[in-house]
Amino acid sequence: MGPLQYNNELIQKYSNLTRSINEEYINIHPIQRGGILTSEAFKALISYGDGYSICDNCLKGRIDKIENPPVVDFLKDMAKFLNIDNTMLTAAARESKRLVMEVLSKKFPKRKTVIIDSLAHYTTYLAIESNNLKVREVPNSGEPEFEIKSEDYEKIINQVIKEEKEKPLLVLLTHVDYKYGNYIDPKPIGKICQKYGIPFLLNAAYSGGILPIDCKDNNIDFIACSGHKSMAASGPIGLVGFKDEFYNDIMVNSKIEGNVSSKSFPNKICTVMGCPPVYGAPLITLMASFPSVVKRTQKEFVEDESKKANFVIESIKNIKGIKVLGKLPKVHPLTNLETTSFLEIAESHPRKGFFIREEFKERGIIGILPGISKEMKYSTYGLTWDQIHHFKKSFIEIAEKYNLI
Amino acid sequence: MGPLQYNNELIQKYSNLTRSINEEYINIHPIQRGGILTSEAFKALISYGDGYSICDNCLKGRIDKIENPPVVDFLKDMAKFLNIDNTMLTAAARESKRLVMEVLSKKFPKRKTVIIDSLAHYTTYLAIESNNLKVREVPNSGEPEFEIKSEDYEKIINQVIKEEKEKPLLVLLTHVDYKYGNYIDPKPIGKICQKYGIPFLLNAAYSGGILPIDCKDNNIDFIACSGHKSMAASGPIGLVGFKDEFYNDIMVNSKIEGNVSSKSFPNKICTVMGCPPVYGAPLITLMASFPSVVKRTQKEFVEDESKKANFVIESIKNIKGIKVLGKLPKVHPLTNLETTSFLEIAESHPRKGFFIREEFKERGIIGILPGISKEMKYSTYGLTWDQIHHFKKSFIEIAEKYNLI
Repeated sequence: MGPLQYNNELIQKYSNLTRSINEEYINIHPIQRGGILTSEAFKALISYGDGYSICDNCLKGRIDKIENPPVVDFLKDMAKFLNIDNTMLTAAARESKRLVMEVLSKKFPKRKTVIIDSLAHYTTYLAIESNNLKVREVPNSGEPEFEIKSEDYEKIINQVIKEEKEKPLLVLLTHVDYKYGNYIDPKPIGKICQKYGIPFLLNAAYSGGILPIDCKDNNIDFIACSGHKSMAASGPIGLVGFKDEFYNDIMVNSKIEGNVSSKSFPNKICTVMGCPPVYGAPLITLMASFPSVVKRTQKEFVEDESKKANFVIESIKNIKGIKVLGKLPKVHPLTNLETTSFLEIAESHPRKGFFIREEFKERGIIGILPGISKEMKYSTYGLTWDQIHHFKKSFIEIAEKYNLI
Repeated sequence: MGPLQYNNELIQKYSNLTRSINEEYINIHPIQRGGILTSEAFKALISYGDGYSICDNCLKGRIDKIENPPVVDFLKDMAKFLNIDNTMLTAAARESKRLVMEVLSKKFPKRKTVIIDSLAHYTTYLAIESNNLKVREVPNSGEPEFEIKSEDYEKIINQVIKEEKEKPLLVLLTHVDYKYGNYIDPKPIGKICQKYGIPFLLNAAYSGGILPIDCKDNNIDFIACSGHKSMAASGPIGLVGFKDEFYNDIMVNSKIEGNVSSKSFPNKICTVMGCPPVYGAPLITLMASFPSVVKRTQKEFVEDESKKANFVIESIKNIKGIKVLGKLPKVHPLTNLETTSFLEIAESHPRKGFFIREEFKERGIIGILPGISKEMKYSTYGLTWDQIHHFKKSFIEIAEKYNLI
């Protein structure tokens, strides 16, 4: 392997990194819908594109203490928005989950089990694994609804206490799951956690910024949010919200001291490595979109989004070989379809499983997983009603083309 | 505390998050110079602003396996550029350091000490602290040069082995430090590490992307780089480079399994929580700037940057009460001045320690720490020669105004 050459080939390879596709198409991929920038965020992005742009007026060496732009205010407003005592920035929601488990492991070293719903995102499992903890899943009801029953949480808590002679370390609920978009009410689970004195973490990566959340009312001790997934931020950027009770566990000041220099850094928060990695574009876009996010989580807008999702479902659910999975009616617009008929078509189609993606792309719709025809996941979040009608019409057209209606 | 209101006050607070200051001023803050976007990166930023923009064509559920845009190629090209076997993306250089210490702690559980230079960045200390390791500093020669002697590394390695009956876990060298901008040649330290069989990590947050680095030639096992600090990336984004020998330690596949669902995620890298948090703008801007970064680390451009830094120093070093700290001539343009005369002026100045920042700002130059007059840190990196002359002229003007010449 020779040294890397600076030449035309190199320049060519990394030139034209544009995503023009996104301007001409509707992207229905569920990880994309909630992270589309508002125009305010887009403007802020252009101003704050450079690496450490947000640190121009950092006077205290801490991102959470910057007053211009108003980061201090923002963290307080965000806490108010989620109705929890404190919020801190993290690299992403997955990092918030990892961090909560890490600090609880230190606080309760004998507790080793994290109880999670069986619809949890893979990063929930990885957070458990990277903290050397044990996972205990709350089952779901299986096809077609995949429902989680809150009373099962109590059963499993009791099992863990009986088997391990210790409480579980943490109960985690996926507020809206990545797979079926099921919305679960945290309230009864919060009550159970309170009864047993077990910390309760809500993974709101898909919901915080899309649905209203009241942590106090639901006895939520910790909340993990995602700016790029559901708060119209560039990012990646996450948030961890936490009760005052856990303030000193999350916000741990550094204690290390240089053995020669005697240097120390008591002002720096050790748990987030000083400043969490969100210095420029991620944080400024999250802040710029915040008023719109507050607005869009108000009742009327949330209801309109559910309406859109359910409207599409009503229109396509009778297509031959299409089955809607997950609970209905939808609260959150992430939708999962079992598409047996598409799978059958794919078997003899010259483009195999890719045909369905291509049929939609021809109609200006992208975000469908390539090569997969047995199921389809999409989110209608934030589409205009015109786009909703176009999506529905395209779906029907494709179904007609393949004689499924 | 009532619920957060969506009202004009809220909208107002987060509107106009612009940084127009940056367009009209020269920013000489050392954390800013290397992260200023290239025009290619700026274009890519605009296209890829949305949250998960880089994942449009993710076929394998792994950011490091995305082929369009060419992430796979990029990681290989970056490894070639640094001349190390592998590179992986991380949230930031600090996260690369934390990760290397974490995986080495698992590999060598009895080794507890990390040897670092006493000019190391605070995040190096925090990485040690968060891994529950011990720090051992290599002293520096003190004022005015603050030099680190490579032979001291060998002495301290021997001390650690004698005292702990174990090798140190890791030797870490700050290639260019944040405080004096001293450049240290890694070669002799790499040789010592090789002799004793101790892993060697180069913290290249200030150098990777600014100076050429050849890891193989210097026996570097791990390298930590920063896209937003020194590779013209938006970010935050970091890189960890590592030898094949450590591939299975860094790239650990998940092994956890759901107790009910039996779900497992063997494709996901547990050490970076699946995909490191760099999904959209951070990675695309790093990639878009890469050809320019390769170009600017070529000999002629590097020499020109040193020339600029030394030219300014030559012009201002005789100002009364100004002393240049750190080794001279500069290799890296990060410069630290002891400004005793500014401190004296500040005592009786109506604007106190803020006067010096304001004098420069009036002349179109920002990035000087507010309120601090006893020392001054700046970097001339990437300034045009015209801007260099303007900076020098401004400095002389201010010195004349206060009778320091």
